[in-house]
Amino acid sequence: MKLNLNYDNIKKSYLFVEIANRLKAYTADNPGADIIKLGIGDVTRPLAPCVVEAGMKAVAEMGDAKTFRGYSPDSKGYDFLRNAISAYYKSNGVIVDADEIHVSDGAKSDCGNITDLFDSDNTVLIPDPVYPVYMDSNIMNGRNIILSECHEENGFKPAPDKKVKCDIIYLCSPNNPTGAAFTRAELKEWIDYANSMNAIILFDAAYEAFVTSEDVPRSIFEVEGARRCAVEFCSFSKTAGFTGTRCGYTVVPKELLDGKFAAMWERRQSTKFNGTSYIQQRMAEAAYSKEGIKQCRENINVYKENAKIISDALTSLGIYHTGGKDSPYIWLKCGGDSWEFFDKLLTKANVVGTPGSGFGKCGEGFFRLTAFNTPSKTAEAVSRIKKVL
Amino acid sequence: MKLNLNYDNIKKSYLFVEIANRLKAYTADNPGADIIKLGIGDVTRPLAPCVVEAGMKAVAEMGDAKTFRGYSPDSKGYDFLRNAISAYYKSNGVIVDADEIHVSDGAKSDCGNITDLFDSDNTVLIPDPVYPVYMDSNIMNGRNIILSECHEENGFKPAPDKKVKCDIIYLCSPNNPTGAAFTRAELKEWIDYANSMNAIILFDAAYEAFVTSEDVPRSIFEVEGARRCAVEFCSFSKTAGFTGTRCGYTVVPKELLDGKFAAMWERRQSTKFNGTSYIQQRMAEAAYSKEGIKQCRENINVYKENAKIISDALTSLGIYHTGGKDSPYIWLKCGGDSWEFFDKLLTKANVVGTPGSGFGKCGEGFFRLTAFNTPSKTAEAVSRIKKVL
Repeated sequence: MKLNLNYDNIKKSYLFVEIANRLKAYTADNPGADIIKLGIGDVTRPLAPCVVEAGMKAVAEMGDAKTFRGYSPDSKGYDFLRNAISAYYKSNGVIVDADEIHVSDGAKSDCGNITDLFDSDNTVLIPDPVYPVYMDSNIMNGRNIILSECHEENGFKPAPDKKVKCDIIYLCSPNNPTGAAFTRAELKEWIDYANSMNAIILFDAAYEAFVTSEDVPRSIFEVEGARRCAVEFCSFSKTAGFTGTRCGYTVVPKELLDGKFAAMWERRQSTKFNGTSYIQQRMAEAAYSKEGIKQCRENINVYKENAKIISDALTSLGIYHTGGKDSPYIWLKCGGDSWEFFDKLLTKANVVGTPGSGFGKCGEGFFRLTAFNTPSKTAEAVSRIKKVL
Repeated sequence: MKLNLNYDNIKKSYLFVEIANRLKAYTADNPGADIIKLGIGDVTRPLAPCVVEAGMKAVAEMGDAKTFRGYSPDSKGYDFLRNAISAYYKSNGVIVDADEIHVSDGAKSDCGNITDLFDSDNTVLIPDPVYPVYMDSNIMNGRNIILSECHEENGFKPAPDKKVKCDIIYLCSPNNPTGAAFTRAELKEWIDYANSMNAIILFDAAYEAFVTSEDVPRSIFEVEGARRCAVEFCSFSKTAGFTGTRCGYTVVPKELLDGKFAAMWERRQSTKFNGTSYIQQRMAEAAYSKEGIKQCRENINVYKENAKIISDALTSLGIYHTGGKDSPYIWLKCGGDSWEFFDKLLTKANVVGTPGSGFGKCGEGFFRLTAFNTPSKTAEAVSRIKKVL
């Protein structure tokens, strides 16, 4: 039996495992340390009351023979949720048909699994630094990967290089890890580039709920031409605090390869996935109700305020950074070795962040802080960071 | 951009669509018909009370900042659930370490996704008739597939043919669709066969909770040698009625390729999956508590009694069939064309089943009935079937 040898080409340790290990070693030596975590991109605020209520009701339905639900009618998700997602898009001025929405257990699954649909013989363009899933899932498939370098000079928002030919393009905006967000005009350049060579854009919109800048699109489908070249991944994780609850969705427009791509994704999902839990689908529907959007928005505003506090502090220190505005991430220039800065922040300030080099070669010399902790802990962390820097 | 052209080789499965269409046409012509469905393999009884209670508690925890849970510590699942699964195995006399258990959103996902770990250049042995996921997920990867034919002569329990060389072997026992269940001795033959040529067995144990025969193993790991060659998929779907709730698990023994296979699966899952919902993990834990096992057992006993009623009726009519004992499925010999028998049962008895030919070439002339309807409807269906046959 032959194993998929491409797995041997993936770096062994997942970034956050290494962080956990260093943290564990430090707290073992310093049991009293009051550690503040601005590291992993995990939310901390509880689910919105109406989401909890919907969850309770759905669980109760599952316990009653009259309202019990077995398998979903299909792997794409219930109509009630796909209609709610379609209405959410509409409220943001974007027309996405309920039929184009595929519900899943999370954007990470979809982002990884969608690579099944492509031949191994494709060239994949991935920004550097980047969310590791794009890179690793394509290494697992043995694809040729080229990097689009992000750095201070382009504000960590790369423009397409028309001399470079590729087949699949990953974009994430607002970006993880850099927090940088494309404007409509910048995204239009990428769409035109993709359409000019029949490439596909895999667009990760997991952080769309953080966008408030007028010129920054919340969906790639706000921009003309995207429906012919793009797939969009979205998630309730950051929008509604579902990181531990699990629900996401992927939009595959009808125009993409004349419907063939949507049919392939549906075939993949109906073969290797059995639908998202009825309970989560009801909770997600509640998150996109009028009341739910209001309640979730309150949580997001808290995180956005945290981001602003961190960003303002760095500005006052004269430290270059991106993000912190339309994003829960702040990407700061630490210079030198990112892991050394990690150790410095951990040991001197008892603050945990994420070394930029963990997101790619161009992340070296940079460092990611997240806005997902509580306001008081974020303020305390900022005050400690100020003392150290 | 090049698509994965293997998708063009998958048969468009019209099985359940065709069943729905024929049913729709019949009920349009016969609006008063009292149709009884013994077709699809979906449960009907509600979740056990202690599972509902655990779900309520978990949802409430997610709504409180003090008890809120974000991402799972890792994609494998919480210790509390992996320990409960390990204890469940132990109660059945099988030692499986909590570390060897990987929790997911369902066995179908794991069954499909595990094919990522193999090179395309492998020969896969799949029984015929079969659950379509094994076949389709390997066609998607372009692998060479050979069939192990099941028929009346081998009681739909094929024995390995030592002259046949293969790399990956799918086994499902108790089987979907035939309900046939391997004895320990029969399974030992497969394990020895696999070990003799370093093949891997992908063992689907989704229906283990239906086993009551003394000589039928509930886990492949009951049988000596399995830990060196087998992976086992299991599910809360049929055990605890989780078809719409979603939770399953996969056991990868440490001995398999000296731990390399477990490491690869963990890498795959941590890259393309973000863990199972905390809510489902708590519900699954409750299903494997002492009280939960008792409550779930009551539901399974109802289905088992249904299966016995169907099986006894067929025996009294002298109709050859498998299953109905350690399984919720009854696989009966209808002779001739499976679809003709479908029409006969639908029009003459108003009972819906599944044509065996939909599960593979060797299913022609056979027909699947399921035990998941209510006891009264099952009894009524049996009485109608008796009149027709």
